[in-house]
Amino acid sequence: MPRVSADHLEARRDEIVRAALRRFAENGFHATSVRDVISESGLSAGAVYSYFPSKAELIAAAVERILQRLTGALDAAVAGDADRSPTEDAAGVLRNVLPALEADGVDYTRIAVTAWAEALRDPAVRVIAEEVYGTVRRGLAQLVVRWRDAGHLPEDVDVEALAQVLLSTLMGFVVQHAVLGDVDLDRYATALALLLPRRSGA
Amino acid sequence: MPRVSADHLEARRDEIVRAALRRFAENGFHATSVRDVISESGLSAGAVYSYFPSKAELIAAAVERILQRLTGALDAAVAGDADRSPTEDAAGVLRNVLPALEADGVDYTRIAVTAWAEALRDPAVRVIAEEVYGTVRRGLAQLVVRWRDAGHLPEDVDVEALAQVLLSTLMGFVVQHAVLGDVDLDRYATALALLLPRRSGA
Repeated sequence: MPRVSADHLEARRDEIVRAALRRFAENGFHATSVRDVISESGLSAGAVYSYFPSKAELIAAAVERILQRLTGALDAAVAGDADRSPTEDAAGVLRNVLPALEADGVDYTRIAVTAWAEALRDPAVRVIAEEVYGTVRRGLAQLVVRWRDAGHLPEDVDVEALAQVLLSTLMGFVVQHAVLGDVDLDRYATALALLLPRRSGA
Repeated sequence: MPRVSADHLEARRDEIVRAALRRFAENGFHATSVRDVISESGLSAGAVYSYFPSKAELIAAAVERILQRLTGALDAAVAGDADRSPTEDAAGVLRNVLPALEADGVDYTRIAVTAWAEALRDPAVRVIAEEVYGTVRRGLAQLVVRWRDAGHLPEDVDVEALAQVLLSTLMGFVVQHAVLGDVDLDRYATALALLLPRRSGA
């Protein structure tokens, strides 16, 4: 297949995924139909179905995109050099992850809050939530291990529980951003930094 | 009115509110009808309507109950003596607030997650969310002020932003409890304590 054509196919697929994300952000997974996504994309039904034969495939592609955004943003922070302080790491996570929540012209914080509610009643959405948050929590746990090994945290720190607390600082930002709309990323990151361990020895 | 009768009326009203809370936890505000609450309560339609003429009144009573639970739990922690450390205060908040989320035989964490999603699409629910979280955030801000005044935090701490971060540690617990079901209150509280300022001078 000539390169131009492959690029074109990929761009078309991407267009559909972004249309689906916009509809999911507006109305949630449950209330969004393939028909809604077709209409949002401005493409023909045949075009959309040729990429995504069913709503399940659309949701899977949307979730894959969300995971890519989150893990891409987390990996950079987690991989950072051991010399960086927890405060710098966490600021990095917040400053990478949270803007990623508004990429693609989609408010991912709305999708997240909607998906949590749907996960309470729909086992398929719950599996997705477990996958997404399992991935994020493992990334945060790696960060905690690095902080512990660098002497910023006690040897016997409960890695998993602290990763849950750190995940909460992201989830709580998401809720307050989506529902209350009055959080400011920079002020929030600065306040969070006050709670993180200082450089070892400090 | 004789005292026994007033007690009886109050008990009956309470019974209806708890029935409503159970249905809201199961299906959310939007999908729950007064008919569902009547059936859940085991009382007659006339009895329920005599206390709550419409679903709006049921929701208001449920929200009032939620607010009472949250503020009752918060007030104790916020009012605490100035000598208590932030770690002790925060453990107090978590240990008071989180069990309150499971009182009345109702999983309030499910109601919270559902209400957030509904607040995205229903202005009336959004107003409720703003009221509940405004109240909780003001309580947490008082705690931050006390910590600052006791020297645990810098003079120029951003009180509102730090209250948002502390609220996140509650909201994130709620999400992980309701959706993922794998957080343990004691381990979570212990991990959170690692992040809080130590006694002044430490």
